[in-house]
Amino acid sequence: MQVQVIENVLKVNDEIAAENRRVLHAARIASIDLIGAPGCGKTALIEKTLQMLAGKMRIGVIVGDMATQRDADRMARFCDQVVQINTGKGCHLEANHVRRAIARLDLSKIELLFIENVGNLICPVGFDLGQDAKVGIFSVSGGDDKAAKHPYLIVESSLLLLTKTDLLPHIPFDMDLFTADIRKLNPDVKLLQLSAKNGEGMEGWIQWVREQAYETAEARTRQ
Amino acid sequence: MQVQVIENVLKVNDEIAAENRRVLHAARIASIDLIGAPGCGKTALIEKTLQMLAGKMRIGVIVGDMATQRDADRMARFCDQVVQINTGKGCHLEANHVRRAIARLDLSKIELLFIENVGNLICPVGFDLGQDAKVGIFSVSGGDDKAAKHPYLIVESSLLLLTKTDLLPHIPFDMDLFTADIRKLNPDVKLLQLSAKNGEGMEGWIQWVREQAYETAEARTRQ
Repeated sequence: MQVQVIENVLKVNDEIAAENRRVLHAARIASIDLIGAPGCGKTALIEKTLQMLAGKMRIGVIVGDMATQRDADRMARFCDQVVQINTGKGCHLEANHVRRAIARLDLSKIELLFIENVGNLICPVGFDLGQDAKVGIFSVSGGDDKAAKHPYLIVESSLLLLTKTDLLPHIPFDMDLFTADIRKLNPDVKLLQLSAKNGEGMEGWIQWVREQAYETAEARTRQ
Repeated sequence: MQVQVIENVLKVNDEIAAENRRVLHAARIASIDLIGAPGCGKTALIEKTLQMLAGKMRIGVIVGDMATQRDADRMARFCDQVVQINTGKGCHLEANHVRRAIARLDLSKIELLFIENVGNLICPVGFDLGQDAKVGIFSVSGGDDKAAKHPYLIVESSLLLLTKTDLLPHIPFDMDLFTADIRKLNPDVKLLQLSAKNGEGMEGWIQWVREQAYETAEARTRQ
């Protein structure tokens, strides 16, 4: 009975996600779902990205949290297309949340959409939102064992980020172990190291983001 | 339909939790459920606690992760009563996991049981495991906004910890904001700051832990 209900929930979610994908593609918008633990630096990364791409790329942000408007307030300083979703007791975003958020955005002003998921390394992985790519985010301060402990995110991600590299001098972190754990689970996934605080490694991320938008436009042209 | 199923799952969970509580109390064991984000330092805290209480208090540990045996291996260096639970795709421990783990422990060798939940600030909060107290754990590196974003954990916790205070010089963290957010949600809950790395603040935690065991024994005597 429980399995049946969960399957139904996922089926409905997948249908809405497919609809989101159609709407976003029709508007020529590439979308990226950012998944990581609470405090891994998702919001700081988006803030820095908005600043670095100001005037170069039109970006929108949907941000999920159980409670508060704080992340949207932070990002609204650099972006006029931001929607905060509060999930209440919900531990992840679902396609339905994103559908409602899309309705509140001016899609004509966006070519790239960041979807900052609720801070959680587990539950968001199983829900398609209609995104083009999932990015799994780990922080130096989260510890070098977190890739091995969260295999589904590693397998499902198009890109992995290791954030807060500015803290490496202050925290024991075995980079070889962390990288080897990832390679065992997903041999080909790209891994970028960066610090949104001191800017280290941000160029690689920005380049990847720009390629996403370009590739989406390309795919559209080829269709 | 979905609500009905979730209610049934929680009802079964609560029954098993009550059974766990009876078994643990009959064995004169106090139990503490540690809930926090991945990388907030739960394992490091338990390791340090095991070292500080070696020869003074007999401690057992049940530790949950989606995958790997790493936390149990770390703690087994300081404790011979450790059980690792792998939840697979599960995002939290349930009473059923704890029941199976208890069956693998020698209860006669334990007076205090730590249950290290799966790293997740959201889902573990709603599941009674049979514990005597829930401890909500936040780290400096997780950011000063995490209390406000996770109100249910704040409300449900008997004690809150702010860990990794050794990182305060390297990370912007508004302690007044963090504390005020907690006070709004749970005016009376005790908040301890500590670093398992440099030992700062550990005495307060150790004292609280010892009081838990003492209070449980007291309650038992009074029954």
